[in-house]
Amino acid sequence: MTDLPVFVNGAADGTVNSADRGLHYGHGLFETMRLCGGTLPLWDWHWSRLCRGTAALGIPLDRETVWNDVRRACSQWPADGVIKLMVTAGSGGMAYRHDGGPCNRYLFYRPLPVPRDFIHLRVCDYRLPVNPRLAGLKHLNRLDQVLAANELPPDRDGLLLDTEGRVIEGLAGNLFLRTADGWLTPDLGGAGVRGVMRDYLLAEIFPALGLAVRETGVALSQVHAARELFLCNAVRGIQAVTAIDGSDHPLAADEIRRIKTELARRLPCFAA
Amino acid sequence: MTDLPVFVNGAADGTVNSADRGLHYGHGLFETMRLCGGTLPLWDWHWSRLCRGTAALGIPLDRETVWNDVRRACSQWPADGVIKLMVTAGSGGMAYRHDGGPCNRYLFYRPLPVPRDFIHLRVCDYRLPVNPRLAGLKHLNRLDQVLAANELPPDRDGLLLDTEGRVIEGLAGNLFLRTADGWLTPDLGGAGVRGVMRDYLLAEIFPALGLAVRETGVALSQVHAARELFLCNAVRGIQAVTAIDGSDHPLAADEIRRIKTELARRLPCFAA
Repeated sequence: MTDLPVFVNGAADGTVNSADRGLHYGHGLFETMRLCGGTLPLWDWHWSRLCRGTAALGIPLDRETVWNDVRRACSQWPADGVIKLMVTAGSGGMAYRHDGGPCNRYLFYRPLPVPRDFIHLRVCDYRLPVNPRLAGLKHLNRLDQVLAANELPPDRDGLLLDTEGRVIEGLAGNLFLRTADGWLTPDLGGAGVRGVMRDYLLAEIFPALGLAVRETGVALSQVHAARELFLCNAVRGIQAVTAIDGSDHPLAADEIRRIKTELARRLPCFAA
Repeated sequence: MTDLPVFVNGAADGTVNSADRGLHYGHGLFETMRLCGGTLPLWDWHWSRLCRGTAALGIPLDRETVWNDVRRACSQWPADGVIKLMVTAGSGGMAYRHDGGPCNRYLFYRPLPVPRDFIHLRVCDYRLPVNPRLAGLKHLNRLDQVLAANELPPDRDGLLLDTEGRVIEGLAGNLFLRTADGWLTPDLGGAGVRGVMRDYLLAEIFPALGLAVRETGVALSQVHAARELFLCNAVRGIQAVTAIDGSDHPLAADEIRRIKTELARRLPCFAA
């Protein structure tokens, strides 16, 4: 891949400082955001997660500054696509200790991904380590995802378990499953990324439909026995899982259709 | 910190591609090497560890190319100091899946650190996650070290345990301890960085002195009860620990002196 369209600290075609703590240690965070008609419909949710991350990693960040970057970049890019916002702990790649200097801000553009009709999951052999201090954050230490992704053939999506065998998430999205006990989504207190779309569905969409949903430990046997199953993220919205390696019972999508319809009613860019 | 002196892919003052997978995911590795009279006395050991890492992370790397980079950079930098070699999985920061394209190579220079007479350890609250797939490698996902370092006052070095309570390593060096049962060093099969100096001591120096040493699980109580204790890395060599928070018995350094003397006889740059 060649250079991506990028804004660095508010400047088009800015360069990456070779001492950036993002490059040296993965000391930073990112948000992958759906750009829709020149707007970012889930901006408040992305900002909220980013602030949880910057607080945990000791990175000072000013909302007005970041928002000005976003507006400037969006004015030069197509109206629809995906914006990746990355914030690092600034420069200083020769010592783990962080002096708290100014952060570096990056914005990247890419076109929308091609929609997919089928989501076929495979359980990855690679297991996520358990680390309550980093769990939930969308930080830049992503070797877990890289190693899991490289196991998969191109026609499979990955399902990730932790080193203790609990189901955590998809490779690039959170998991919801309808069981005999109702809707569940994995608890992310020990591992995984707390996705913006996951939080939005839990706070807005499930309650609006009167559907109960629980964050809880999820076993692989529950995934195999699920009646409906979907992955979600802030770029693709909701995607029903159509098959899982090792499962042969058919998956329904009746309630998933209701959930997708309600999401599309509130945020039309996520219409199927 | 401003820009470091850097060579990128063999070119002085080259720039960092904003799509570098090192920046986006920490998909890469590094070596921190002592530069001594224009030479790298432990080069073969660094190269060997780097190759274990590139094999695990799917990064193709050619020794001749890297060595030419090193020679070119060293010809322009001072004869003594520290060289940081970083290798990333190249460009492509918009998908976890790696297409196996060419790597990016970075070399950074910094002066030697100021020698220290006292090493005063504190046990960090932050715990290393257990992850056998990444254990031992010096990869770029270093939030563990960043968060541990930020707990410490400037006059303390950190001692890191894993989430299961086992002693693993210092913040920037491996640990050796002399107990009533002889010399031990923590087993690094689940967490920690397998340091080049650690491997060199185990393979060359302990055997030359007829000293037995075991890689094994180490409990914090064994560290507190140790008679002698040192940290080692490939920049500073061997540093005797002079105090540990929570321990009040005196630490000796009789055998440490013998080990340091033998190291300095073979590699004079590590003379005390």
